[in-house]
Amino acid sequence: MPEEGKVTDTISDPRTAIADAVIAAGQSASLKDLAQLCAIPSVSARGQELVPCALLVAELMRKSGLQAELMETAGGPPVVFGQLRSPNPDAPTVMFYNHYDVQPAEPFELWTTDAFTLTERDGKLFARGVADDKGHITSRLLAIEAVREACGGSLPFHVKFFAEGEEEIGSPHIGDFIEKHSDAFRADACIWEEGGVDESGKPALYCGMRGIAYFELSVSTISYDAHSGVGGSLLPNAAWRLVWALASLKDANERILLPGHYDTARKASLRDLELFDKLPGDEAYLRSQFGLTDAGALGGVQTTGLEFKRRAVFEPTLTVCGLNAGWQGMGAKTVLPANALAKIDFRLVPDQDPDTVHAALRKHLDNQGFSDINIKYLSAQRPARVDPDHPLVQLAAETAIGVYGRRADIIPMVGGSGPMWWFTGRLGIPTTSPGIEYPGVRVHAPDENIRIPDYGNGTRHLAHLLLRINEVCG
Amino acid sequence: MPEEGKVTDTISDPRTAIADAVIAAGQSASLKDLAQLCAIPSVSARGQELVPCALLVAELMRKSGLQAELMETAGGPPVVFGQLRSPNPDAPTVMFYNHYDVQPAEPFELWTTDAFTLTERDGKLFARGVADDKGHITSRLLAIEAVREACGGSLPFHVKFFAEGEEEIGSPHIGDFIEKHSDAFRADACIWEEGGVDESGKPALYCGMRGIAYFELSVSTISYDAHSGVGGSLLPNAAWRLVWALASLKDANERILLPGHYDTARKASLRDLELFDKLPGDEAYLRSQFGLTDAGALGGVQTTGLEFKRRAVFEPTLTVCGLNAGWQGMGAKTVLPANALAKIDFRLVPDQDPDTVHAALRKHLDNQGFSDINIKYLSAQRPARVDPDHPLVQLAAETAIGVYGRRADIIPMVGGSGPMWWFTGRLGIPTTSPGIEYPGVRVHAPDENIRIPDYGNGTRHLAHLLLRINEVCG
Repeated sequence: MPEEGKVTDTISDPRTAIADAVIAAGQSASLKDLAQLCAIPSVSARGQELVPCALLVAELMRKSGLQAELMETAGGPPVVFGQLRSPNPDAPTVMFYNHYDVQPAEPFELWTTDAFTLTERDGKLFARGVADDKGHITSRLLAIEAVREACGGSLPFHVKFFAEGEEEIGSPHIGDFIEKHSDAFRADACIWEEGGVDESGKPALYCGMRGIAYFELSVSTISYDAHSGVGGSLLPNAAWRLVWALASLKDANERILLPGHYDTARKASLRDLELFDKLPGDEAYLRSQFGLTDAGALGGVQTTGLEFKRRAVFEPTLTVCGLNAGWQGMGAKTVLPANALAKIDFRLVPDQDPDTVHAALRKHLDNQGFSDINIKYLSAQRPARVDPDHPLVQLAAETAIGVYGRRADIIPMVGGSGPMWWFTGRLGIPTTSPGIEYPGVRVHAPDENIRIPDYGNGTRHLAHLLLRINEVCG
Repeated sequence: MPEEGKVTDTISDPRTAIADAVIAAGQSASLKDLAQLCAIPSVSARGQELVPCALLVAELMRKSGLQAELMETAGGPPVVFGQLRSPNPDAPTVMFYNHYDVQPAEPFELWTTDAFTLTERDGKLFARGVADDKGHITSRLLAIEAVREACGGSLPFHVKFFAEGEEEIGSPHIGDFIEKHSDAFRADACIWEEGGVDESGKPALYCGMRGIAYFELSVSTISYDAHSGVGGSLLPNAAWRLVWALASLKDANERILLPGHYDTARKASLRDLELFDKLPGDEAYLRSQFGLTDAGALGGVQTTGLEFKRRAVFEPTLTVCGLNAGWQGMGAKTVLPANALAKIDFRLVPDQDPDTVHAALRKHLDNQGFSDINIKYLSAQRPARVDPDHPLVQLAAETAIGVYGRRADIIPMVGGSGPMWWFTGRLGIPTTSPGIEYPGVRVHAPDENIRIPDYGNGTRHLAHLLLRINEVCG
């Protein structure tokens, strides 16, 4: 690792101009590759079109000069593994983590244009996966090409590029895969799958993700749906059982009622709060984006300023993601549901553990008289942290200047989840996150999009970082 | 009304043998008519195929010798009105109330055979509406034909036969229709739309129905579904708002929490309890039919014997009929729902009033902090009662002997709801309910069915009652 002050000036490095030119010249072709990727509805929640998408990712890697292969996972879709070796065998290794699967695009009727046809409108590109995460795959490949050309045709570092196909369902096989292929996962730095700018256009890097424990709760009370007139007084109603069970899990003040749930939840450090305090708030943005008119955001919980920022990521959450029971069509059907289902996710802060939450959930439901509620443990990720003062993070902040005219902000942690812990925790690789997103990307929602200029900027930021990454690793 | 002891012996009346023979000879053709009716998916919840079904009902009425016309309602599907006058202008009038609409047949995959194709299997006939209520329409028409032939070609009473098309959505226009056509609704007795035998094959007549107030609760918290990682700590979740609002309406001991809800709920009278005590319990049947293995039925409420029977109908209920929010497909979608919806029905006992419940629901939700929950008042019926000792009811019980070899049981009230109050309460017409059903009909559920012998028996019971109905009215 370099000493403070030893970092050179990216802007005056003539290689950056070459990389920028390559990216400018290559962006159009790169977006055509992206359109091809977005055309494949690789929805991991349904196991849909994953192998075809993996094959295309490998093809795109090869087009960018990487050796690429598909690797089997123990029951999941393949991992695409691309490599490009530096002529210097002792060069450090930079790993890229991405994923080629996407969230379901439903409800389709809320998309302005077809979810799986990359469409330009008002300087933006719309499609499921355009930001999360296919746009990052093509952007990273373009950045690697640009850096190689700027360095005279060969890289000063080795590249390992992983793209998995199950990130959107919680990467259930990545742990086993990493344990099995631990050699392949040795690296000195990791470029995370996403990143970008805030509402004011300022780049931001994040140093951690919340964990997640995602469950399907289901209950069956009777053999088949009953007439509510006959059954209303006599038969157990699956929908009521579910409603009562859910209400026992969180109160209207957003307090999660699992015993011990907050015991291992690490509070934000003073350094975290200091970093948050420097960040622009996206409170006004979130309010306008989601049409919130009242003073509070969450029911009963008024948050603002630093507390809003802290709460956004350092607070354990419990979200009901979906509910299903009985009659949901038009009009009145007088039915007493035999079956009911909820999808719920707990977001976890360091050092909460998803398996502990799983056990606590079962115990709590049993203790509250809800042993009839079945729990299906659909996915889990541990919370992850990177030291905000790590040289890799500081260099990534510094190299933003050549693209954005300012250092990147450093975000202690984000609210979302991913398999980052495997890299930062299990493998101990420092990780950072330049990228092509902006706050209006509508990730996981209808009309997911990126702004076209962000694509070039995010790609250039990554290239500028890679040109100097040997300073902080290896 | 006749004095006690004046009733003649049905069995020795030669006309009953003629009626029975007509019914036996006509049953096959009548079931063909029924198959035609069931083939029309007249689902009122979707406004589907109602006029074609009404036209067919009118055609079948004409085939049975009635004059039939379709009458406009104020915004709903037509009422089919059939008439057959007695040559004696002073004869009493018997009204038949039926409906030609059906409940939705979903979920279709739980039907053994197509829901809209009348199919015979194991001595039963399966189709949506075969019991509720199309089978009763054809049965009543066959009974009228049989009585007319038994009486030498003309009836000793006038017939008014109403079939509406909105019973399954709470008959929203019947009140206005009855007020507007009050002359047409004058009658001395009314044959209700359904009835039948209990599990042991014993006929039963019911003397009232619970009321109903059916609501759609909905809530929208944000402009579109958010990512649960970003929004979990900050954005109001429509699914949670709904869960908490529902949990505020009924506790896990089945106590409805609307203030004042039980104040006007009339308790079962001693006469009601006496009648209940004589009835066979269908507790064991319900348990086996719905696969209940635990000792209790409703969560936390243990009922058995007379209390089971009382609770089945004399207890106000609140049923969640359906829930909908967010992601309900396979796997884990990490979404924070913008919208959530519940369908709920309150069943009401005399003298609860659905409009009062509506007002109390709004007030309660507001008071509990749920003014964001929208209420759509989908349907309402007032609770109805008939005096179990009314001569019409007693005659209907007596005339069961000629068919079933025993008097019919008299059920003080049933758990279901219908527009009976308009007839018994508003118009003051005594009402009774011979019919073709048995406890396994699966009304409103997949595999709705009738047993073929019940069709003939219910039709004969009605014919025997009609042959003597002048004794108790007019």
